[in-house]
Amino acid sequence: MRIVDIIEKKRDGGTLSEEEIRFFVGGYAKGEVPDYQASALCMAILFRGMNKEEIAVMTDAMMHSGETIDLSGIEGVKVDKHSTGGVGDKTSLVVGPLVSACGAKVAKMSGRGLGHTGGTLDKMESVPGTNIFETDEAFKKQLNEIGIAIIGQTADINPADKKLYALRDVTGTVESIPLIASSIMSKKLAAGSDAILLDVKFGSGAFMKTFERAKELANEMVEIGDSLNRDTRAIITDMDQPLGLAVGNSLEVIEAINTLNGKGPKDLVELALEAGSIMLEQAHLVKDHEEGRKRIQKAIDDRSGFKKLCALFEAQGGDVSYLKDPDKFEKAKFAIPVLASNEGYVKRIDSMEIGVSAMKLGAGRATMEDKIDMSAGIVLAKKVGDHVKKGELLATCYTNKYGVDSVISDVHDAFSLSKEKVNVQPIVHAYIK
Amino acid sequence: MRIVDIIEKKRDGGTLSEEEIRFFVGGYAKGEVPDYQASALCMAILFRGMNKEEIAVMTDAMMHSGETIDLSGIEGVKVDKHSTGGVGDKTSLVVGPLVSACGAKVAKMSGRGLGHTGGTLDKMESVPGTNIFETDEAFKKQLNEIGIAIIGQTADINPADKKLYALRDVTGTVESIPLIASSIMSKKLAAGSDAILLDVKFGSGAFMKTFERAKELANEMVEIGDSLNRDTRAIITDMDQPLGLAVGNSLEVIEAINTLNGKGPKDLVELALEAGSIMLEQAHLVKDHEEGRKRIQKAIDDRSGFKKLCALFEAQGGDVSYLKDPDKFEKAKFAIPVLASNEGYVKRIDSMEIGVSAMKLGAGRATMEDKIDMSAGIVLAKKVGDHVKKGELLATCYTNKYGVDSVISDVHDAFSLSKEKVNVQPIVHAYIK
Repeated sequence: MRIVDIIEKKRDGGTLSEEEIRFFVGGYAKGEVPDYQASALCMAILFRGMNKEEIAVMTDAMMHSGETIDLSGIEGVKVDKHSTGGVGDKTSLVVGPLVSACGAKVAKMSGRGLGHTGGTLDKMESVPGTNIFETDEAFKKQLNEIGIAIIGQTADINPADKKLYALRDVTGTVESIPLIASSIMSKKLAAGSDAILLDVKFGSGAFMKTFERAKELANEMVEIGDSLNRDTRAIITDMDQPLGLAVGNSLEVIEAINTLNGKGPKDLVELALEAGSIMLEQAHLVKDHEEGRKRIQKAIDDRSGFKKLCALFEAQGGDVSYLKDPDKFEKAKFAIPVLASNEGYVKRIDSMEIGVSAMKLGAGRATMEDKIDMSAGIVLAKKVGDHVKKGELLATCYTNKYGVDSVISDVHDAFSLSKEKVNVQPIVHAYIK
Repeated sequence: MRIVDIIEKKRDGGTLSEEEIRFFVGGYAKGEVPDYQASALCMAILFRGMNKEEIAVMTDAMMHSGETIDLSGIEGVKVDKHSTGGVGDKTSLVVGPLVSACGAKVAKMSGRGLGHTGGTLDKMESVPGTNIFETDEAFKKQLNEIGIAIIGQTADINPADKKLYALRDVTGTVESIPLIASSIMSKKLAAGSDAILLDVKFGSGAFMKTFERAKELANEMVEIGDSLNRDTRAIITDMDQPLGLAVGNSLEVIEAINTLNGKGPKDLVELALEAGSIMLEQAHLVKDHEEGRKRIQKAIDDRSGFKKLCALFEAQGGDVSYLKDPDKFEKAKFAIPVLASNEGYVKRIDSMEIGVSAMKLGAGRATMEDKIDMSAGIVLAKKVGDHVKKGELLATCYTNKYGVDSVISDVHDAFSLSKEKVNVQPIVHAYIK
C-alpha cells in the first residue's frame, strides 16, 4: 500500500477503505508517513470530504494511535464536556464543579489557548501552584476521591492527533469538518469518559462562523460518538459576543468563582444550567432536563459547586486562598477604560475582535512559544441588548504593556450600537439529541 | 507574508498575487518553505487552478529560482523541442539532427525516463562513452561548433522545479495543468532557446489521457511562452499506440539511426517531417510548412541528418562506430516472440501496457534509483491498421531476465484486434499556432 495512491484516491473523490485510513494514521503517528504527504491528503480531504464510515474509522484509528485511558474501575458515569473554543469561555470551570457536586464524575482532558481563544489549562495555571500535568494513575485517583479532575492531555494519548493538528494549523487544512470532528472525538474518546457533551460554538469568535456549519460539525461528532458507543450529545451556542464579561486568564477564573458564588453574568449562568442539566441526564442522576436545571441551581445556591472548585484546585496543588479571596490575584499595571462615543443599544460585540485584542494585551499566544500574562485581558461592562449613554463605560482593558492605544480603539470598535432596542438571543440555539 | 495565508487564499478560490507566488517559489527553492506547506499548496492549486497571469508568474519565478542560460552570443535562431513523454518516443534523436542539418541551432536540455516513459538521456547513454553532462560553456561551444547539443539539465538550473517535481510525484499533485505547464516551460525558458516546439502527447501511454486535456495543456504552455516573448508552438500527437516500432533504449537509438538512413517507420517519419518543418519555420529558414517538409526530407535523403547525429554523439564522447554499425550494440540474452492468437486488424496497441512491459523487461525505472538494461525492450511487428494472421508475429520482447511470462502475456493482450478494417489516424491531431 502506498500513501500516494491513497492521496490520489481521495483527490479523485473516492472513499477510503478502513485499511487505507489505518495505514495512513498509524504510519503518520509512527513517523513513517512524511508530513508532506499527510498535508496533501488533508487538503484532498478538505475538498472531497469523508463519509460517516470514513470519519468513524479515522477517529478510531487516531484514538488508538496511542494509549487510551480506562476509567471503568471508577464508579458511576464519567462525563466529559468539550467546547470548540471561544472568547471568554470559562464554562468548564463553572459547570464541571457544579456537575461533580451533583454526584457525577467529571473527567476532563483540556487544552491550551491559541490565537483569539483561551484555554482552560492556561486559566487554571493563573491560580499559583496549580499542576495541570498528572499521570493516568493520579488522574484516576483524583477522580475517585473528589469526583473531578481537569488536566492536560498526557503525552501518550493520541500522538496522531497531536502531529496532525500541528500540521493542519500551518497548511490551511484546519477548516475541514471531517478532520475537526475526528480530531476532537478521538481525543475525547481516548480520555475514557462514558458520556460526552459537546458545546459547539458559532459566530465571529468561534471556529464555525455560521449556525449551519456548527450544526454540521455537531451532527458529525454525535454520530461518531454513537458509532463508538458513547452517549454523545451537543448544544450549539452563541459566540457572536464573548461569553460572560471577562476575557483573560485570572479575570475569567475570578468570574467563574463569582458565578459559583451566585454572582455570575446571565448568559454564563444560563449556559451552566443548560449544559449542567444535560450532563446530569447523561449521568442518569436526574429524570429530566427540568430537574437537572434545579439541581444545578441548588449547587450554586448552597455553594457546593464552589466547594468542589476549591477541592479540584487543592487536589492539583493550587493555592485555594486565591479562590476564597480573589483580590489576591495579581493585578495588571494598567486598567484602561473604553468609553462609548455614542448613545444606543448594544447590537453586537465582535468577539473575534475582543479575543484578538485580549491576546494583544498579553492574555493569549500568537504562537505556541509565547508566554501569557495571566492578569491581562478585558472585562466588558455592557453586553448585547444593554443600553449605553455617550461617555459611559463599555469595557476595561487590563494590561502590563505600554503603547496599546490601537488595541483600545479596536475594543471600542468591537461594539456596534443601534438606535432601536435589540432583542437578546438565547445562549443555546439548538440541541443535538 | 505567511505561506499558510497563501495556501488558504488559493484553497478558497482566490487569485495569488505576483508577490505571493514569488514568495512561495523563492522560499521553497531556498528551503525556507517546508515541503508540507508546498504540497498542501500544490493540492489546493490542483483543485482551484490558476489563471493565466498566475501561471506566467509561477513559470517566471521558477525559471529565475536558479541560473538561466544566455544563448544570445550564438548566431542564428536557437530552437528547442520538448515532448511531454510517451512510449517509443525517440523523436528528438531524429528531428534534432535533421533540423540542425538544415541550419538551425538545436539546443536541448532533456530528461531521464521514469515509469512507463523513456527519456532521451537514457537512450543516448546506450551509445558507449556518451556524456550527457556538460557545463554551460561546453554546451554553448558545442552549439557554436556543430549546431546541436542534447544534455541533461545542469544542477544550477531551476532548483525550484527540481524540488517541486519530486514532491508532486509523491503527493498526488502531478496532474494539475497549471503545475505541469509551469514546470515544463520554466525549464525550457531557463535553457535559453529563442523558439520552442512542444509535442504534447495524448492517449493511453501519455500523461494526458484525452485530446481535450492535451489541448488545454498545449494552450497554457503556448500562452506562457508568448507572455515571456518566446516563439512557442505546439503539436498534439497520438500516443494511443507506441511511436514507431521500437521501445527500449538501444532499440530506439537503432530505430533513430535507421530513420535518418531513410528506413524509418511511417508514423515516426511523418512526425519528423511535421515537427522538423515547424522548427525550421520557427528558425526562419523556410517560407512555409511545405518547404519545411521538403527540406527535412532532403536531409534524410542526403544523409546530412545522420551525419549530424554522428557529430552530436562524437562531440559528447560517444563511440560513433555504433551508429555506423548498429549491430555492435549489445544484444539481450533473450528474444521472445509474441504471436497473435487470432486473425484480424490491429485496432489498438495499449501503449501504457507496452511501456510498463518494456520497463519490466529491464528497459525502464520504477524508481529513480533503478538501473536500466540498455538492451531490453520491445519491437513491434504490427501497428494499428495492420492485418495479422493467427500465429503471426505481433512483437518481439528483448530481455536479460528470467521468468517474464506474465510480461509476454501482457504484451500480447496490449493488442486489440478487430474483424473490420481499421482506419489509421494521422499522427498529428492538432497544431497550436
